[in-house]
Amino acid sequence: MFNTLYLPELRELLAQNNSAEMKEFSVALHPARAAEFMEGLTPAETWMVLQHADLARRVEVFSYIEQDKQIEIVRTQDRREIAKVFAEMPADDRVDLLNEIDDKIVSEILPLVPAEERRDILRLRAYPEGTTGALMTTEFAKLRESLTVAEAFAELGCQAEQLETIYYLYITDDHQDDRLRGLVSARQLVSAIGKPNTRLSELMERDLVVVNVWADQEEMAETVAKFDLLAIPVIDDDQRMLGIITHDDVIDVMREEATEDAHRIAGVNPLKESYLDTHLLRLTWKRGLWVTVLFFAALLTAFLLDHYEQYRQWWPWLVLFIPLVISSGGNSGNQSATLVITALSIGDIHLRDWLRVVWRELAIGLLMGSFLSFIGFIAAFLLIKDNAVVSAAVLALTLLLVVVCGTILGASLPLLFKRIGLDPALMSNPFVAGIIDILGIVIYMSVACTLLPPQGS
Amino acid sequence: MFNTLYLPELRELLAQNNSAEMKEFSVALHPARAAEFMEGLTPAETWMVLQHADLARRVEVFSYIEQDKQIEIVRTQDRREIAKVFAEMPADDRVDLLNEIDDKIVSEILPLVPAEERRDILRLRAYPEGTTGALMTTEFAKLRESLTVAEAFAELGCQAEQLETIYYLYITDDHQDDRLRGLVSARQLVSAIGKPNTRLSELMERDLVVVNVWADQEEMAETVAKFDLLAIPVIDDDQRMLGIITHDDVIDVMREEATEDAHRIAGVNPLKESYLDTHLLRLTWKRGLWVTVLFFAALLTAFLLDHYEQYRQWWPWLVLFIPLVISSGGNSGNQSATLVITALSIGDIHLRDWLRVVWRELAIGLLMGSFLSFIGFIAAFLLIKDNAVVSAAVLALTLLLVVVCGTILGASLPLLFKRIGLDPALMSNPFVAGIIDILGIVIYMSVACTLLPPQGS
Repeated sequence: MFNTLYLPELRELLAQNNSAEMKEFSVALHPARAAEFMEGLTPAETWMVLQHADLARRVEVFSYIEQDKQIEIVRTQDRREIAKVFAEMPADDRVDLLNEIDDKIVSEILPLVPAEERRDILRLRAYPEGTTGALMTTEFAKLRESLTVAEAFAELGCQAEQLETIYYLYITDDHQDDRLRGLVSARQLVSAIGKPNTRLSELMERDLVVVNVWADQEEMAETVAKFDLLAIPVIDDDQRMLGIITHDDVIDVMREEATEDAHRIAGVNPLKESYLDTHLLRLTWKRGLWVTVLFFAALLTAFLLDHYEQYRQWWPWLVLFIPLVISSGGNSGNQSATLVITALSIGDIHLRDWLRVVWRELAIGLLMGSFLSFIGFIAAFLLIKDNAVVSAAVLALTLLLVVVCGTILGASLPLLFKRIGLDPALMSNPFVAGIIDILGIVIYMSVACTLLPPQGS
Repeated sequence: MFNTLYLPELRELLAQNNSAEMKEFSVALHPARAAEFMEGLTPAETWMVLQHADLARRVEVFSYIEQDKQIEIVRTQDRREIAKVFAEMPADDRVDLLNEIDDKIVSEILPLVPAEERRDILRLRAYPEGTTGALMTTEFAKLRESLTVAEAFAELGCQAEQLETIYYLYITDDHQDDRLRGLVSARQLVSAIGKPNTRLSELMERDLVVVNVWADQEEMAETVAKFDLLAIPVIDDDQRMLGIITHDDVIDVMREEATEDAHRIAGVNPLKESYLDTHLLRLTWKRGLWVTVLFFAALLTAFLLDHYEQYRQWWPWLVLFIPLVISSGGNSGNQSATLVITALSIGDIHLRDWLRVVWRELAIGLLMGSFLSFIGFIAAFLLIKDNAVVSAAVLALTLLLVVVCGTILGASLPLLFKRIGLDPALMSNPFVAGIIDILGIVIYMSVACTLLPPQGS
């Protein structure tokens, strides 16, 4: 539901071209809230309202507008005005946006952006999506280590206007401007305000946590979460500082990765765009691929069942419980797989814990399996007319074995995937279900062959 | 794999009781890194190493130690020393830790904590887990609105020592100390350093994003992510400011919620503790509950199949494809459910999009279903001896219908759950699979009844 409170008023202001009130609207509210109130406007209307705010505010509100609308505005509105916005946007956000826009339009806008900003955009665009470099911003507070506290405040006063954030001040070598030596937090600097002649080199922390510009974004996010950082400096292979990643990008990465994991667990290749924006045929392909692989696995069950034809003729009741057997195994297996995948991804368990995990799953499989066996035994006893006790025992034993197999397989596969260097979430759930389908039928028929006499009574 | 680089050296230092070097160890490294290097030590050894650091550093390193070890240290080490650590720990972290410890031990430690800190602990412990209040810290930079920039720096110089962070300065009413009026970022204050006589009331942002102390932590995290905040002020029903939530807690909440969703999707009641720490019987209960519910659903298929007994006797090949039919429907349904649940949770789709979602799923169901139909037709044609064309057509039509039902059901159930106010992730996958099991068999048998003659040829 979008917020429609201001919508009629905004439309009226637009119709009257009431500049003062439109300016007031964009100044009084938090930029994110102003963007929210404009959700009901068309891209062109939104852009018209924004024209009445000064450039700094316009850029702030613009950055909170939904991406679809941003793209539409960039595509359709005056290139010269758009270039002004790009010149002022945070370095990381504008690159994200430009990556969504047709190259032809980008090539029309870029020449209108001031040279320094343009070079920055081109540099950041060189890092492929998924790397730390593609997320970083080149705007951060940089101070030389020989500065005193008083000089640092003066220098910061000049830098702060252009920066997104200054919670960490990065301290560089006096001779080589881009070699990172240490870090002073805004808190530390403010605490030292009573000692204006202290040098930054005396205040700074020297043991820094950094990330390489080519590192995978997931690895970067893990590091930030582990060390509880607000921002992390990004360095190249020669230890030169190139930029920082800020906390908001880390939150986005963590969300993205959690969603990708959830998709993989359900056997969907992770989507690049949002669900509604992904082309129907691409979405079908990303899903159909695994559905088809699993289809062939399930097709094996038909051949298996064909193999046990005679037994099915002797004991027709066996057929009744096929869905029950395979779905009991599948459900308990999926639970185990999901628990192990999520525990691995948040670091609750490690590969070295594998034996403990398998033991736990064995115990849980035995407990749940015994209980389901018991219910299964009663149900089969009531439903099957002849040789009821032995028949019910066949079902009960099958259920116990299948549930135990399900929990152990479900827990082991993600661990195995991780061990051989694959993503543990790699469609483990359908994979587990597919194996359990086949295994369930083999177990069911083998138990029946063992316990039941070869001919119907 | 824990880091064993320093382990032998650390053990040796402990044996020699080499105080200078142990102090150096805890000062030179980033606290998180020092904690990591001590992973191989026992809780008692870790505590002994920490004794050689000064209190501030000891508390910092302690806060990065794994929780299990923290708990063990608190339980076993000298209460007086532990109380000193609690007095210095960030307000939110110490409450989290105390909540994990037996009440008896807590009641021994608390009287040893200074009165002011103790009151703070008791106040924060009053908020139930899952609320914003349980996560907040009471340590934040608070300034009166009549202060000038110069006065603010002086005041902050005093406050900063005790604070976790000062990226946002909260500006309060001159008369009522705890009524929040506005906010000045550290960046804004530093930019204004050249205008020392400016009042904070002129600098501050007045349109603030706040969260109620009783709000659900998930709601709070959503707000912080949406507005890209570093911290969010927490207020009570009378608009008084009680504390702040910092970005690191937001990252933790987002992880926790993603994991809970993943568990629900797989039909596991979310765990309170980590996988390995959850008692085996509790884990069995959290999983067994849904497995049993689903078991009864699957049991229905046995009665259904029993109902179609005659058909199964006329056309014995029907049985062969039962697992194939139900798992094709289940897999495509689970994909749809997971895609819709994750898209809902990250805000990519909203309830108002339901018609678009259902149309998309219908189209994808038809595409994937047709393809699987085609493969199914060929497989059945090769496997079935008599009346092969009609029989293969039965399977093909069934597969198409089941896959379409699966995708539409999988997409609709989470939307429906959300509409009636339930969590869309509420075990939707096993739920979908359970319904598809039953529906799949009804569709299969109905198609067979319609297309095949009532007696085997």
